[in-house]
Amino acid sequence: MTTEATSESPYYLAAGSEQKAIRIACERGLAVMLTGPTGCGKTRLVRSIAAELDRPLVTVSCHDDLTASDLLGRYLVVGGDVRWVDGPLTTAVREGSVCYLDEVAEARRDTLAVLHSLLDDRRELFLDRTGESVPAAPGFALLASYNPESRSLLKELKPSFRQRFVTLSVTYLPPEQEALVVQHESGVPEDVATALVRSAVALRRSEHAGIEPPSTRLLVAAASLVAAGLPLESAVRIGLVNPLSVEGAVALALDELLRAEGVLT
Amino acid sequence: MTTEATSESPYYLAAGSEQKAIRIACERGLAVMLTGPTGCGKTRLVRSIAAELDRPLVTVSCHDDLTASDLLGRYLVVGGDVRWVDGPLTTAVREGSVCYLDEVAEARRDTLAVLHSLLDDRRELFLDRTGESVPAAPGFALLASYNPESRSLLKELKPSFRQRFVTLSVTYLPPEQEALVVQHESGVPEDVATALVRSAVALRRSEHAGIEPPSTRLLVAAASLVAAGLPLESAVRIGLVNPLSVEGAVALALDELLRAEGVLT
Amino acid sequence: MTTEATSESPYYLAAGSEQKAIRIACERGLAVMLTGPTGCGKTRLVRSIAAELDRPLVTVSCHDDLTASDLLGRYLVVGGDVRWVDGPLTTAVREGSVCYLDEVAEARRDTLAVLHSLLDDRRELFLDRTGESVPAAPGFALLASYNPESRSLLKELKPSFRQRFVTLSVTYLPPEQEALVVQHESGVPEDVATALVRSAVALRRSEHAGIEPPSTRLLVAAASLVAAGLPLESAVRIGLVNPLSVEGAVALALDELLRAEGVLT
Amino acid sequence: MTTEATSESPYYLAAGSEQKAIRIACERGLAVMLTGPTGCGKTRLVRSIAAELDRPLVTVSCHDDLTASDLLGRYLVVGGDVRWVDGPLTTAVREGSVCYLDEVAEARRDTLAVLHSLLDDRRELFLDRTGESVPAAPGFALLASYNPESRSLLKELKPSFRQRFVTLSVTYLPPEQEALVVQHESGVPEDVATALVRSAVALRRSEHAGIEPPSTRLLVAAASLVAAGLPLESAVRIGLVNPLSVEGAVALALDELLRAEGVLT
Amino acid sequence: MTTEATSESPYYLAAGSEQKAIRIACERGLAVMLTGPTGCGKTRLVRSIAAELDRPLVTVSCHDDLTASDLLGRYLVVGGDVRWVDGPLTTAVREGSVCYLDEVAEARRDTLAVLHSLLDDRRELFLDRTGESVPAAPGFALLASYNPESRSLLKELKPSFRQRFVTLSVTYLPPEQEALVVQHESGVPEDVATALVRSAVALRRSEHAGIEPPSTRLLVAAASLVAAGLPLESAVRIGLVNPLSVEGAVALALDELLRAEGVLT
Amino acid sequence: MTTEATSESPYYLAAGSEQKAIRIACERGLAVMLTGPTGCGKTRLVRSIAAELDRPLVTVSCHDDLTASDLLGRYLVVGGDVRWVDGPLTTAVREGSVCYLDEVAEARRDTLAVLHSLLDDRRELFLDRTGESVPAAPGFALLASYNPESRSLLKELKPSFRQRFVTLSVTYLPPEQEALVVQHESGVPEDVATALVRSAVALRRSEHAGIEPPSTRLLVAAASLVAAGLPLESAVRIGLVNPLSVEGAVALALDELLRAEGVLT
Repeated sequence: MTTEATSESPYYLAAGSEQKAIRIACERGLAVMLTGPTGCGKTRLVRSIAAELDRPLVTVSCHDDLTASDLLGRYLVVGGDVRWVDGPLTTAVREGSVCYLDEVAEARRDTLAVLHSLLDDRRELFLDRTGESVPAAPGFALLASYNPESRSLLKELKPSFRQRFVTLSVTYLPPEQEALVVQHESGVPEDVATALVRSAVALRRSEHAGIEPPSTRLLVAAASLVAAGLPLESAVRIGLVNPLSVEGAVALALDELLRAEGVLT
Repeated sequence: MTTEATSESPYYLAAGSEQKAIRIACERGLAVMLTGPTGCGKTRLVRSIAAELDRPLVTVSCHDDLTASDLLGRYLVVGGDVRWVDGPLTTAVREGSVCYLDEVAEARRDTLAVLHSLLDDRRELFLDRTGESVPAAPGFALLASYNPESRSLLKELKPSFRQRFVTLSVTYLPPEQEALVVQHESGVPEDVATALVRSAVALRRSEHAGIEPPSTRLLVAAASLVAAGLPLESAVRIGLVNPLSVEGAVALALDELLRAEGVLT
Repeated sequence: MTTEATSESPYYLAAGSEQKAIRIACERGLAVMLTGPTGCGKTRLVRSIAAELDRPLVTVSCHDDLTASDLLGRYLVVGGDVRWVDGPLTTAVREGSVCYLDEVAEARRDTLAVLHSLLDDRRELFLDRTGESVPAAPGFALLASYNPESRSLLKELKPSFRQRFVTLSVTYLPPEQEALVVQHESGVPEDVATALVRSAVALRRSEHAGIEPPSTRLLVAAASLVAAGLPLESAVRIGLVNPLSVEGAVALALDELLRAEGVLT
Repeated sequence: MTTEATSESPYYLAAGSEQKAIRIACERGLAVMLTGPTGCGKTRLVRSIAAELDRPLVTVSCHDDLTASDLLGRYLVVGGDVRWVDGPLTTAVREGSVCYLDEVAEARRDTLAVLHSLLDDRRELFLDRTGESVPAAPGFALLASYNPESRSLLKELKPSFRQRFVTLSVTYLPPEQEALVVQHESGVPEDVATALVRSAVALRRSEHAGIEPPSTRLLVAAASLVAAGLPLESAVRIGLVNPLSVEGAVALALDELLRAEGVLT
Repeated sequence: MTTEATSESPYYLAAGSEQKAIRIACERGLAVMLTGPTGCGKTRLVRSIAAELDRPLVTVSCHDDLTASDLLGRYLVVGGDVRWVDGPLTTAVREGSVCYLDEVAEARRDTLAVLHSLLDDRRELFLDRTGESVPAAPGFALLASYNPESRSLLKELKPSFRQRFVTLSVTYLPPEQEALVVQHESGVPEDVATALVRSAVALRRSEHAGIEPPSTRLLVAAASLVAAGLPLESAVRIGLVNPLSVEGAVALALDELLRAEGVLT
Repeated sequence: MTTEATSESPYYLAAGSEQKAIRIACERGLAVMLTGPTGCGKTRLVRSIAAELDRPLVTVSCHDDLTASDLLGRYLVVGGDVRWVDGPLTTAVREGSVCYLDEVAEARRDTLAVLHSLLDDRRELFLDRTGESVPAAPGFALLASYNPESRSLLKELKPSFRQRFVTLSVTYLPPEQEALVVQHESGVPEDVATALVRSAVALRRSEHAGIEPPSTRLLVAAASLVAAGLPLESAVRIGLVNPLSVEGAVALALDELLRAEGVLT
């Protein structure tokens, strides 16, 4: 595990062995699936991998209404004529970029179906609208992520799809490293960063039904408010308690936990 | 808390500390979520913030059928050729305006997905139809609101979305200030304004199942009718009782409450 | 209450105080909601208001599939070029007409969302397709109606929408006035009109499960048939009993009630 | 009641008083609803009325996917330009024809909503796509039909819609007249026609759960097969038993009934 | 019943009286419905009828998403202009062909609605997009089929639709004739054909829950494999057992039945 | 059974008799259905058949939103004019290629309906948009696959569809052959390949509820990671355990099974 951050990936201070495995898989032409809780740093990890592979990164946030055309491209009428415009996936395949499908379990199955020929040894993308087969350029890599906790029954990925990816589970940074990140990104002093991370760890461990684990991003947001002059208590409330709770009972449990950590009084 | 109203925001006489926190968050590039009951003044607060930041305000009322194109823009055929027309969100990002997504929990998830790259440290908007990435101009701020009381299970915002916002909960003005607003906006004398606000407070406190808390706007409407010459009783019925109740039983309970406050006889 | 009918509104002989309240609300820029049973004269009342305000009236019958474009307008391709055509709501806003949304509870929520900026103190309509903001011209008034009896759970208007309207509940004309209307519109002698109205009152009071209250329009229809030479009994059957009942049991109950009123034998 | 058939309406030998009532309603500008079982002759009655009124007849078979555009018309691109093409309802309104909406309860509510302004004293059709209001030309009449037996809960017409029509219930011809029609249309001798009608009457009276009442049209079809040389038994089976039954148990009950009438052995 | 096969219909060796009844119905302008199990030869029978009537045959396989336009035709943009292209039904009506709607119960009701004017004595097709009424050319005949066993509740044809057809139920060929067909189409010796047909008869008689009756087509397929050199046992497994069963329990029951018939060992 | 692999099909070392039966069926013009578990090599088998028949292969991955147009083709506007572009199925029919419909049970019924005329003795494809009938060129063959284990009730293929195919069930390669494939494709030594295949066999035999059978592809992926220098344990976790399990309990059961096989410690 390394704590060195390259200038291209200043944030992600972690999990060197995982990063190595992902890089190897990408280099062998294997697609990679990352699983883990919301906000544990999957997106940042992918950016770090792309920097290490020295390839551009194309990110697609998946959702219910993402169509195959949104990935592949479409015909547009320009000047009375028709021009094909590549979608982000086609661009990545053609240019040998890293393509990252964030929250892939949210996508519709028909949209995922266009990936099949990319994910076996054909390694090509078929554009049914133009009849073109686009072979993956050298350097092309496909990564995807989903959160096993939040998946619903309707959205469960099919085994035949999951078996097309090697799969790593990712989790939060170790506390000391997360505190360094919070300090670095927000400009707060070490003790504030440490107190916020300590609170986050307590919240993530909590087994209270309605409490959601806070992301590193949220800690940075709360810390930013402190750095900008808000009192710690206000910043924690606005930046941590409120975004995590929508019900009174949960807010009370949160308060109690955070008071135990000394960030609320 | 200040009771001074600037000429740009004549109405919102309140919550100075909240307004300061929101301003700081916007200046630090953090997105802000406002929660609170219907009609407590969230929209007005946003207008006040935009005035303070001295930026134009773009408001989008969210709903089930708001598409990503409605936010981002679309191609239009003009004179046989095709012209891209920015949507309200793209306009705000490009011009560094304040963008306010009212009732954001009503929007479809795919529509919300276009916000992701704006809400992390990329701070840019990706127009998939044109392939353009629009970086947020200086001054761009994103605010959103939802009403935790009215959200349905289907419409619940995902934690991964909520954690992208610092979050403040907003509620009604204190009675004396609300009365000042009602008086100022409608032109009724102080005692009428005070009686109406007193009724509103009673209704908001009521635990009767079907009684909805009246908005400040509704009090101003009822007061306007009085100012225009309608008897108080008629104005209260038309402007307060009827809009709040659709069932006979509720109307009776309302009547009773309002008689207790002396605005109905 | 006045029984004078102006030449512009020959029918609506009623509810002077209600009409005055509506006129005042319109003049103060408040939107007005009318509630009441089917066929009690809401549409006619709106026409009478428009006549009194001396503004053109634009009526939109709301339904499930009314789109925002149906209200706002759309681009049409004409001669190879594109022309924007205002929808009925935009026309009314631009020209300062009275706009009446009949059965507004039937409309889809996304369609109603376009009304929001018209219904608060912005008083402007935003055309997202053109990017134009259309301020309400002097004289613009917005009225809407729904029938609280027939609303389904799915169609219930949201409190945040209902609180944007002052609200009057409307009901049938008093019997003597309704008889005058029936007589005037159909040309039947007074006794026939009176008998028909007496029957209608009995039907409206009936608590028999399947009996629907007849509208004034239906009484006029039945009376017209009598005036055209059909026997009273046939006319009542064709014009009153049949349109009100789809089941045998209800038809029998109707017959009994109408026999008691002497219009069937 | 007349048994004379004009050359324009050779079939409908019936219900003179009903036909007169319908004609009067049409002439008074009232819309007419016909109710009754499948195949009792509603369509033929409408054709007879149109012939009597000496106006062209436009028939629209309603169904789930009939859009407002299907009734009103649409823009078509011809030669690079756009031309408006009236739909069948607009044509009828413009030309003063009789418009018949067959099985109107099958139509979607939004499609029915376009009828509202035609069905009250405005008597005009609003084409929202062109902004044109088309007043009903002299002679325009609107008739509709539905079968109260087959309506489902989802398809039930709203009272506010039903109350816009005077309503007649129609049923099968008396046996002697139906036999004359069967004889006239198929060319079979009187005894065959009489036997078939007697069977039909028995089937219509049957209270056996699955037996559907046969239409006059079906009797004519069976009779046609006899006239073309098929044995009566085969013709009855192919033309009467089979179209009426989809289950074995019902077929047996049908057989028994028909054997009792002597048309099967 | 004839065992003569004309050169145009080499397969259908059957049911001369049925074929005659269908021909008569077609000649009298009556629409014909064929009911019966999957694969009993309905399609072949229709081809035989078309050959006998000496008219071209247009077949449409009905399904959930078959639109009215798929039957009637549509406008296509060619060379900047718009050209109407007839659909298969319109073609058949215009040219006096035989039109066969296979599995008509699968079609959507709105699609079936376009048939109504063809199925009564108007005998014309109305193209709502062009406003054209196309009268049926001499020789036009309409046949349809459905399988009463497989119909679901949602797909049940309405009585008003079924009563527009004379209806024949069709079933499998008698064993000796089916064996002749299998022998003729595949080229296997008589004993193999006989054994396969005997197995089919046993399977069709079986009351085992999951066993589906095999079609004649399937017997021909299995026989073809034998004729091409596969061992009988392999051919029966690939061509008969596997296509009929998706569950192990059913496969075992099938095996047992087929072993009893001597085609599996 | 042959263990010879031609240069065109280096992978599929198997099931010679099955391959021969499929080839014969294709040559006789019979459509072939392959059933079997996910990842057992159906796709590879099809490629092997196409190589043996010396015809190009067109693969279509079926899914919920695959339209008939996606198979048949569509009109595209190019240079102001309209050009028809064949879809993959039409291309295969026209050029006499092998067409493979992967996971055909996922497709919508209306999409499958376009296959009907190809699957009986007509052997032609009807393009309803152009009115063209495309006869199958010599060499055309149609293969399809589905996984009986994963089919849902909604997606069950209709008997009338299944009976149009001769059907073979396919399963995993025998262990020694699968190990050869793993070794050949990944470059790992024999003992690693053998250990991985032994683990796979154990997992496929396991009756633990949540354990999915691993595909040969997944074994090759895990082996590739070992060949690239990852420790066996990491490679097995990333390449085998994680893609197969989404729940902790299942992961534990997997671990135990794999420890028993000696690939995890």
